[in-house]
Amino acid sequence: MDQMISIIGTGQTPFGEHWDKSLHDLIADAVQSAIEAARCTPLDIDMVIVANMIGERLSGQAHLGALTASLLPHHPPALRVEAACASGAVAMHTACALLESGKAQTVLVVGAEKMTDATNEEVAAALMGAADSEKDAPAGITFPGLFGLVAQRYMHEYNLSREDLSCVSALHHRNAVGNPYAQFRKEISAEEISASALIADPLRLLDCSPVSDGAAACILSTKFEGPVRIAASQLATDAVSLLDRPSITSFRATKTATERALAEANIKLQDLQAIELHDCFSIAAVISVEDMGLAEPGTGVQLYKKPDGNLVLNPSGGLKACGHPVAATGVKQVIEISKWLQNNNLRWGATHNFGGTGATCGMHILERHNG
Amino acid sequence: MDQMISIIGTGQTPFGEHWDKSLHDLIADAVQSAIEAARCTPLDIDMVIVANMIGERLSGQAHLGALTASLLPHHPPALRVEAACASGAVAMHTACALLESGKAQTVLVVGAEKMTDATNEEVAAALMGAADSEKDAPAGITFPGLFGLVAQRYMHEYNLSREDLSCVSALHHRNAVGNPYAQFRKEISAEEISASALIADPLRLLDCSPVSDGAAACILSTKFEGPVRIAASQLATDAVSLLDRPSITSFRATKTATERALAEANIKLQDLQAIELHDCFSIAAVISVEDMGLAEPGTGVQLYKKPDGNLVLNPSGGLKACGHPVAATGVKQVIEISKWLQNNNLRWGATHNFGGTGATCGMHILERHNG
Repeated sequence: MDQMISIIGTGQTPFGEHWDKSLHDLIADAVQSAIEAARCTPLDIDMVIVANMIGERLSGQAHLGALTASLLPHHPPALRVEAACASGAVAMHTACALLESGKAQTVLVVGAEKMTDATNEEVAAALMGAADSEKDAPAGITFPGLFGLVAQRYMHEYNLSREDLSCVSALHHRNAVGNPYAQFRKEISAEEISASALIADPLRLLDCSPVSDGAAACILSTKFEGPVRIAASQLATDAVSLLDRPSITSFRATKTATERALAEANIKLQDLQAIELHDCFSIAAVISVEDMGLAEPGTGVQLYKKPDGNLVLNPSGGLKACGHPVAATGVKQVIEISKWLQNNNLRWGATHNFGGTGATCGMHILERHNG
Repeated sequence: MDQMISIIGTGQTPFGEHWDKSLHDLIADAVQSAIEAARCTPLDIDMVIVANMIGERLSGQAHLGALTASLLPHHPPALRVEAACASGAVAMHTACALLESGKAQTVLVVGAEKMTDATNEEVAAALMGAADSEKDAPAGITFPGLFGLVAQRYMHEYNLSREDLSCVSALHHRNAVGNPYAQFRKEISAEEISASALIADPLRLLDCSPVSDGAAACILSTKFEGPVRIAASQLATDAVSLLDRPSITSFRATKTATERALAEANIKLQDLQAIELHDCFSIAAVISVEDMGLAEPGTGVQLYKKPDGNLVLNPSGGLKACGHPVAATGVKQVIEISKWLQNNNLRWGATHNFGGTGATCGMHILERHNG
């Protein structure tokens, strides 16, 4: 990055079931918190980017850019972006482009989703918009089904055991215990995870991230400074349908985005001290650490069985335990890593956020640079 | 703009009823045409921006960025943007930011919508996502209703006659006769328009843009040159609900976006020789020419009754006659003005694209700079 992009204010709602809050309300709450925490006034914000996936289907609400801009007295220019579950990362990337272009000096990024008022069938159908509506959806498959296929194949190729796979969600639940914004704040043992209800063989209930409401807001600036900067912002894509992939146990977009982000930040993978990664299902976390290059193919689960003391995975509890209000996740990850670096006096962290079965991947590298 | 952003390739489908084409198909057709016309190879495209509003609701398809990137052999990074009917302009603006930031040198922008397979009720409900789902939609009003209110108030304030209002659609239909991509290619007299079925008093059927399928694609580049450049790209927002506006006969976002765009291009309003403007309803065209500063409040219709020889409005036929596949419109406008400037040896043109009842407005100024 040619310019210093600082995180100058963050805010979020708790993730979970907010039956008394609309999509508007969640956005307003997160924006209010971010502004209160910010090193600028609301009038300094000169652009608003909103990440949202399924508000049109579940809340009858598109046009969230202008709606969110109306929370500010001067109605700055605004738009919504979407790339399925990677919408949050895509919003961060768009904000960085606006800042680097000089079109804006301070950008408010908001990710939000309101999911729990709808039926399971409505939510599952809306989420299938992340897959290919002509190749995947007509088969009647849902996302747990798609990742069930991925897990089946992975277990076949690499002899991953059910017991080992359960270590993933167990660690995420352990990490979430101290997170006041997490949807589930209690430890769950690997044994309990292995014994939970079967959803899409071999995936069980506690392999799956929940349906969640929530919003996260982050103010980025080239004009004002903060203790953490965005050192890299990269996106990559792959074929949307698993049918069009040479392998379903590795997601190319993660590899590409990681390589590009490390090059942009000019650091090595080993420099990263904390990563928020996209564990929509436990198997996704295993594949993601491999695709990022943190583990050899087939060995990713080892990072969950015996965590590396020099690298924290999903300090927030990840999608599984912190919750997964789809488009809020990528923004929440940035907030989490920003705080983690500051609270633990660390320098380098990253966020890994993908959409669908990895067809869009956004990687951001954060650096704590002073304070 | 600090950098020269050239339009180096454009393509579009005819706008209309494509019962044999899916949303995917329409996008593929427009992209193929743009690439064939382009001064670069597909591999030169390093980012894809897709504008779409209601694909999630009517086609069950989100994640259109990755899906469209898959049409290119190298799967470049991609995202979808949305700002209701201004989605196309917002996509152009995002592409300009990516180019100016240096994150990309050549960007494919696609706007697409597939609407005619759904029932009128489904389409009307989906379009209401452009309004405020908590303030407007619960009243049971639809977009023709909202613009009916605007037209009622405008006629009351300025004594606009039914006969004069009909001049707007009459001119648009006249302009569309020679446009091979237009949905309706025949002249319709002002008398016929005044006599068409009442939709939302005082608006009649022929005051309203149609439901349309279509896609438009435009390749922008800082690396390759073309005969037309983007001289300005500006967005502005306003309150989404009419309930929150001091006036409903003037749309502030159009004023703001126009002022900013003229300043960015460093030209005067009078320099513009052709404008594609957002006539979702006839009354919107009247208000838009006033808000742009082309006519005094209450007199906008005069530009339709007695067209100015130095300024062409909606050479394509506008939304009314060319058709309005929501998110495709803002991209199609840029294509149209680009061609118009070249075919008529003109220098300056503009596109005006708004969302909802004017809550988001995107203005682009184009300059033919050689050839």
